[in-house]
Amino acid sequence: MKASDARAFFASPESLALDDYLLLDYVFECQDDPELAAAHLCSEQSTAQWKRVDVSEDYRPRFAAKVLDLNIEPVPTGFSVPMPEFGDQQVHRCRIRIAHPHANFGPRLPNLLSAVLGEGAFFAPGIPLIKLLDIAFPDAFLSAFQGPRFGIGGIREQLKVFDRPIFFGVIKPNIGLPPEPFAELAYEAWRGGLDIAKDDEMLADPDWSPLAERARLLGAARRRAEQETGVPKIYLANITDEVDRLLELHDTAVAAGAGAVMLNAWPTGLSAARMLRQHTKVPLVAHFPVIAAMSRLPFYGVHSRVLTKLQRLAGFDVIIMPGFGNRMMTPAEEVRACIHACVDPAFGQLKPSLPVPGGSDSAATLESVHAQVGSADFGFVPGRGVFSHPQGPAAGATSLHQAWQAISAGVPVAEAAEQQSELKAALATFG
Amino acid sequence: MKASDARAFFASPESLALDDYLLLDYVFECQDDPELAAAHLCSEQSTAQWKRVDVSEDYRPRFAAKVLDLNIEPVPTGFSVPMPEFGDQQVHRCRIRIAHPHANFGPRLPNLLSAVLGEGAFFAPGIPLIKLLDIAFPDAFLSAFQGPRFGIGGIREQLKVFDRPIFFGVIKPNIGLPPEPFAELAYEAWRGGLDIAKDDEMLADPDWSPLAERARLLGAARRRAEQETGVPKIYLANITDEVDRLLELHDTAVAAGAGAVMLNAWPTGLSAARMLRQHTKVPLVAHFPVIAAMSRLPFYGVHSRVLTKLQRLAGFDVIIMPGFGNRMMTPAEEVRACIHACVDPAFGQLKPSLPVPGGSDSAATLESVHAQVGSADFGFVPGRGVFSHPQGPAAGATSLHQAWQAISAGVPVAEAAEQQSELKAALATFG
Repeated sequence: MKASDARAFFASPESLALDDYLLLDYVFECQDDPELAAAHLCSEQSTAQWKRVDVSEDYRPRFAAKVLDLNIEPVPTGFSVPMPEFGDQQVHRCRIRIAHPHANFGPRLPNLLSAVLGEGAFFAPGIPLIKLLDIAFPDAFLSAFQGPRFGIGGIREQLKVFDRPIFFGVIKPNIGLPPEPFAELAYEAWRGGLDIAKDDEMLADPDWSPLAERARLLGAARRRAEQETGVPKIYLANITDEVDRLLELHDTAVAAGAGAVMLNAWPTGLSAARMLRQHTKVPLVAHFPVIAAMSRLPFYGVHSRVLTKLQRLAGFDVIIMPGFGNRMMTPAEEVRACIHACVDPAFGQLKPSLPVPGGSDSAATLESVHAQVGSADFGFVPGRGVFSHPQGPAAGATSLHQAWQAISAGVPVAEAAEQQSELKAALATFG
Repeated sequence: MKASDARAFFASPESLALDDYLLLDYVFECQDDPELAAAHLCSEQSTAQWKRVDVSEDYRPRFAAKVLDLNIEPVPTGFSVPMPEFGDQQVHRCRIRIAHPHANFGPRLPNLLSAVLGEGAFFAPGIPLIKLLDIAFPDAFLSAFQGPRFGIGGIREQLKVFDRPIFFGVIKPNIGLPPEPFAELAYEAWRGGLDIAKDDEMLADPDWSPLAERARLLGAARRRAEQETGVPKIYLANITDEVDRLLELHDTAVAAGAGAVMLNAWPTGLSAARMLRQHTKVPLVAHFPVIAAMSRLPFYGVHSRVLTKLQRLAGFDVIIMPGFGNRMMTPAEEVRACIHACVDPAFGQLKPSLPVPGGSDSAATLESVHAQVGSADFGFVPGRGVFSHPQGPAAGATSLHQAWQAISAGVPVAEAAEQQSELKAALATFG
């Protein structure tokens, strides 16, 4: 690209009608001229060829993605991931903000993904390493999306739980256990105070636990637990399956008594989730398989905050994400960025999604998770912390309430445990 | 996990009914005991909790993923991607083969993805870096999939082209050009000998080029080109859009005269593609946005060969992939592995998909791409190489045929160009 052509891919924010543009923040590493690489990055994701041969025309003013800001730093240590096929020329790490015209494709998730994570980003000449760090949508784009139907407020209303985290529990064993004992475990946990008993994301509709039968038994167990405790409960059914079965599985699960349904968002597809959003009668819950494959490394792929925003856009009421602690290999700052993406009020008319940072949780981790989140507006999702509690699932669920009571009273959880056997056993086993 | 428990996650191939298992090849890096890490990797993707508390049972024999083979190598230079939060303990790089029982989830693409690229793989304790290198499906699993409806043979029959690569061309300018001149460009390229004029993967159904109108004009242009040349042609319409519009857009495009339809496979979702496969009347073509975000790095994510196999499983007749040459930043060996995944006869009853390795191609690259592929069973997909040819799109398409005639006659393309102005201009412009 000639320098004069490259200049057409730069603009000042003041010169653009920003409601017509997505704002994309990338970090990339390159060895050649960073300004030329930046122009290529814009060109490849929009109007790489902006005119016909022998025709006087230019599609760049209206259709080109444009560099708004470019920050260039030399990296003395070279590429952040060794690139043996490159020489030892100076490497620059560049932070760039791009304005991308959304009318190039319209308010459609598959086309949005193709534009911001497609050939334009990952095959721009001279840019072997790149990560999409953030995305901002103007109201003109957001207004085409319904977003969460229930949001945090709707889920709190359904459960009549207004002033504490929502207690989820992943029923375990998840693989192999037939529906009848599986429902019995959920019943016990609900009796002990669990709000939402959920299917593991790996448990869907296999021969040995057909969803229809499982939902029937869980629905009955839920009603029994509600009658005995006088408190609303939710069975969260995992309906992750082929796209053409989702509506039918939703209907089956909900008719049997599921109060919410879960999709593995990325494997099933965000667009399929958006389709289900138009149909659903209950909250939609997202789980996170596959996302780490493109989000873990600091300078390659896509930041999980972007994927969280896309899940909220697709209409998930609840977003389960890798949480705090070494076990989930996700920096605390990244988890907090994803939580913020769920609840950020600057997201058009879209309701907030309930963030659920998860991973090896139990009564022993509630205090630190609450401190990290900084509010009670989150879901807490132990698996073994409830279902492998040595005194059984009811005690596991009870231990969560005991921990929360201590936290809200300002008493250290370890101190409160001295008087409460369920909490004491939880700390001894999982602490 | 206790050593005695870890042993239950190891098995010999002879001890298993292999038709019940997927074979998964991963490479991972760890600092702790590699055998324990391997057991965790199996446990987390299957029966992490294999019994209830106080119940004598064990779900591992039937439901556990099992290590069949483990090869451990110390890496003196440490992790392949710097991991500052880890110390400088010895790092091991491990190649592992796992047998994963497919009855845990059944023949469903979203559940398959969740099992092999989910929390089990990317959050196994002690394994910060992992890549899924390959996957093998037993016939018992493959038999549930239709695979490509037309395959290579069906596309060749449709075009009556049996003995050379299929010539695709990406109509350019792709972003901004209205349907009428866009159709005119395709018409010219078809007149010059192009087989398939295609929409760019970034061009879908925007206001400034609605698919219905574009397909109507392209369909008419195609029929005109067929009448004038006496040769069958295909307009390949990009119908990438929200999942609930796919069938309608397919019907609209095909009724107007599209002879094939394209999906950006990963952004739209493989399961949505499988749904479309049941409905389609024309070949389905896959394009590759997003895939590089999780496949480029040597020791993290998933190998593109795996994603190619999944696209064939979903039913794509044609798979466009990053091709040869520095521009596409993909090692030649990786491109060849993806091509092999398209055509490998050991894939149950599924027809082969036509591989289309692409990236900045023109008459100048046909010889080297053909040599790399090693057969004529591929698609060749220039964009600018046809539509920015200095003598126009007809000459661009003609230059491909001239290059192929030289190749099949054993004449160097550069030598043949001396007598043929279209080819000569192509080599001068793009060579």
